[in-house]
Amino acid sequence: MRVIKVSSFLRAGSQFLDVMEELFSKSSLRSYFAEFISTFIFVFAGLGSAISAAAPAAGATGENCHILVVAVAHAFALFAAVFTSAHISGGHVNPAVTMGLVMGGHVSILSGVCFCLAQLLGSTIACVLLMLLAPGQAIPTGGLAPHVTGMGGTATEFIGTFALVYTVCAARDPRKGPHGIAGPTAVGFVYGANFMLTGPFTGGFMNPARSFGPAAVTGDFSNHWVHWVGPIAGGGVAGLVYESLMSQGSGSDHIKEVG
Amino acid sequence: MRVIKVSSFLRAGSQFLDVMEELFSKSSLRSYFAEFISTFIFVFAGLGSAISAAAPAAGATGENCHILVVAVAHAFALFAAVFTSAHISGGHVNPAVTMGLVMGGHVSILSGVCFCLAQLLGSTIACVLLMLLAPGQAIPTGGLAPHVTGMGGTATEFIGTFALVYTVCAARDPRKGPHGIAGPTAVGFVYGANFMLTGPFTGGFMNPARSFGPAAVTGDFSNHWVHWVGPIAGGGVAGLVYESLMSQGSGSDHIKEVG
Amino acid sequence: MRVIKVSSFLRAGSQFLDVMEELFSKSSLRSYFAEFISTFIFVFAGLGSAISAAAPAAGATGENCHILVVAVAHAFALFAAVFTSAHISGGHVNPAVTMGLVMGGHVSILSGVCFCLAQLLGSTIACVLLMLLAPGQAIPTGGLAPHVTGMGGTATEFIGTFALVYTVCAARDPRKGPHGIAGPTAVGFVYGANFMLTGPFTGGFMNPARSFGPAAVTGDFSNHWVHWVGPIAGGGVAGLVYESLMSQGSGSDHIKEVG
Amino acid sequence: MRVIKVSSFLRAGSQFLDVMEELFSKSSLRSYFAEFISTFIFVFAGLGSAISAAAPAAGATGENCHILVVAVAHAFALFAAVFTSAHISGGHVNPAVTMGLVMGGHVSILSGVCFCLAQLLGSTIACVLLMLLAPGQAIPTGGLAPHVTGMGGTATEFIGTFALVYTVCAARDPRKGPHGIAGPTAVGFVYGANFMLTGPFTGGFMNPARSFGPAAVTGDFSNHWVHWVGPIAGGGVAGLVYESLMSQGSGSDHIKEVG
Repeated sequence: MRVIKVSSFLRAGSQFLDVMEELFSKSSLRSYFAEFISTFIFVFAGLGSAISAAAPAAGATGENCHILVVAVAHAFALFAAVFTSAHISGGHVNPAVTMGLVMGGHVSILSGVCFCLAQLLGSTIACVLLMLLAPGQAIPTGGLAPHVTGMGGTATEFIGTFALVYTVCAARDPRKGPHGIAGPTAVGFVYGANFMLTGPFTGGFMNPARSFGPAAVTGDFSNHWVHWVGPIAGGGVAGLVYESLMSQGSGSDHIKEVG
Repeated sequence: MRVIKVSSFLRAGSQFLDVMEELFSKSSLRSYFAEFISTFIFVFAGLGSAISAAAPAAGATGENCHILVVAVAHAFALFAAVFTSAHISGGHVNPAVTMGLVMGGHVSILSGVCFCLAQLLGSTIACVLLMLLAPGQAIPTGGLAPHVTGMGGTATEFIGTFALVYTVCAARDPRKGPHGIAGPTAVGFVYGANFMLTGPFTGGFMNPARSFGPAAVTGDFSNHWVHWVGPIAGGGVAGLVYESLMSQGSGSDHIKEVG
Repeated sequence: MRVIKVSSFLRAGSQFLDVMEELFSKSSLRSYFAEFISTFIFVFAGLGSAISAAAPAAGATGENCHILVVAVAHAFALFAAVFTSAHISGGHVNPAVTMGLVMGGHVSILSGVCFCLAQLLGSTIACVLLMLLAPGQAIPTGGLAPHVTGMGGTATEFIGTFALVYTVCAARDPRKGPHGIAGPTAVGFVYGANFMLTGPFTGGFMNPARSFGPAAVTGDFSNHWVHWVGPIAGGGVAGLVYESLMSQGSGSDHIKEVG
Repeated sequence: MRVIKVSSFLRAGSQFLDVMEELFSKSSLRSYFAEFISTFIFVFAGLGSAISAAAPAAGATGENCHILVVAVAHAFALFAAVFTSAHISGGHVNPAVTMGLVMGGHVSILSGVCFCLAQLLGSTIACVLLMLLAPGQAIPTGGLAPHVTGMGGTATEFIGTFALVYTVCAARDPRKGPHGIAGPTAVGFVYGANFMLTGPFTGGFMNPARSFGPAAVTGDFSNHWVHWVGPIAGGGVAGLVYESLMSQGSGSDHIKEVG
């Protein structure tokens, strides 16, 4: 009996080492670093443009332009962030995207945790640098508009992130064929479109890494849960829906690629 | 005589079952669901950004920016909607596009009806959710500008939708070769450009599903016919024109792909 | 002697018939029609959005947004116009582009004339429809800003069109490989960028078809020569420069495709 | 002894001639000319739109729109500049990009110097023409915002250029496969996003050629060092980071291309 215990103990240890080796292989470490840099690029340009757009707006009245500047900056920066990491780590730059791919069975839970840590670190360092470079400016955090409740904000973030991660899943679909630029563009554009909707209501995050950095450097975690629960749930449901309803049996479909 | 009648009755029944099987096959149902989700994504982000853009505009004077925010949000959201459904259902997300493909002989009438129902349902559910999430805000419906007549509005929607569906037909053209991203981009951009023109005149719909949802949840169907007659006629004519004049004999053409 | 004259007369006649057959073949007629429709789509959305943007601007102060609305609408509409005709006629939609391709040896002079006539007709019909649909609105024509001379405006249009047609030539370059979407995007973006520069100075045409339509329907041909001389010269020089300096000996180059 | 000296002298001379032949071969000269024209196109449209956007802004209050007009014009113009030279010279149009590729081992130092000279010349001639065509207008140079120090401006330019050149390196990565349009789009978009951030702080250059031209024609070299030190250092570090951490051992990676 003891022999079996020892052997199963040894087997578990061997499996543990395999998991560790996979988690911290050179290729995996490169993936985490790619997620770190790309999330840094995304948050530095996105949050930075929100700070810049607010700075000279003292006498300006065109509030709509503010949202357009920030939405377009986020869309372009997310495009670049996904583009620069797509061929190395898969181009998540967002814990909600990682969650969707975990639910769809494409990423293991442990790898997903490492990805999220790299994303949170990239966002936080971008926020620290922005604080140093724009000393007098306010860092916008995840506050909700006065008429938006926590539940309403969570639902808005849920739907916006659902659209985002559903688009990521479509971009990954083998039926799409080789793409290169299609995924980053689709992800950047759907994020920009939903940012224009969600920005005035919830701050427009749809990405817990994007909301964590400003909260960490300012210490303002009010309503921060909204920006975790909504996106993580929305991303997870999008991954499940696409995987179970849209991608199965794709081989035998008579596909009519159109638009 | 009766024998023949029975056999023809049986044959008709068998054909009916074939049609039903095709209409409600797993692949077809997946197509309808893809149209439903993609139209939901399009209307939620597009109409939602129009609501958001109007919300903080109380003190703002930059009316032109409002149209730009809404046009860019619609263009980006339509890109994502077409991109996410192109490889599954063909990426219509618009009854006028479905009409154009029916007229061009690419989609059967019965399938087209099912596509339209899925699109109308996706739009309506997006509008219900927007009403719940933005309780105090007005939902913009298909009202015409004061100086625009019903005929003029119909003609404007006709031309805008003609350009849209003509572009869809070009994107489907086999001479274009494999594309992936070309179709969604072209459709999103031409919609955005025409939205900037038609927005201040007719509300800029060029899509009966986009106009049906707000009318259904508000009960305001005034001028609603304009947003069916113009787009459906424009889409149908575009499908006919492209199919009969632009695509025939394409095999033997000496094509000079340029720009 | 007479025998030779008759035979050379017959040969000239045969060549004339060959040219006519080539000029008015089914494929050529389809090309002209594609140029007609695409130029119509471009001018209707581009000029139309300029009319729309001016209409509600009575109380608005954001002049910069006006130029952005119009520039983005033109960029998106030109993308769609080039995209829809690229695989049929080459996607010129601009006499200056046709001129560049004639100078580069890619299009015969007679074909070029037919292309230009189709483009001018498409633009004019778009302007007629816009006059009917927006009865009270002014149609902006090619007037220069007060501080801009005819020579200065011509030079500005020359440089802007040089950049446009140089980009078209690069998009046509066989070294680029199969593209599909690259050409329309590049052409639309470079047009949009130069429109933001030239718009406040010369009206931002860089396309004689775009300027001819408004002049024809309003009868206002003041400074109209600026919008022919500048673009046609700029496009012709761009075609010559690219063909003679950039494309020769491309086969033996060791190319370092990078950005 | 003398024999060896002569032979090594001859060998050095022969190597010198080889280097000269490579530096001034027909293919190399074409590369320099392509960089010259593309940088000219970029600076003429980018700086020109900044001049145009400032010109009618006398009564306008929408400062945010100004930054959006200029950022979008730069993004579109940079796209066109990279697109038109990518297949000929590699599409640098920026000494910081050239620096990154020198550090990554893709371009020799001597070639890099020639590239930079062509870029500086293209920018300067664009500025001379803009001065002639817009005589009364101010040419914006590299002044910093009042609250920005030289060190802070340098750090901002460093990070913005790091993101830009890191994206260029990703676009060059062989794992990306054939692209055509991906590189120019990614480079244009990341530049536009960072321009919205850096514009109000440092003028948003991230490109010494872009800042050199205006300084040369106006003689205003105040803070000019910021726009050389920040971008060149940021570009060089990006080239080193990507080459040493992201691209090595790419052949044996099990790549999970996703977004």
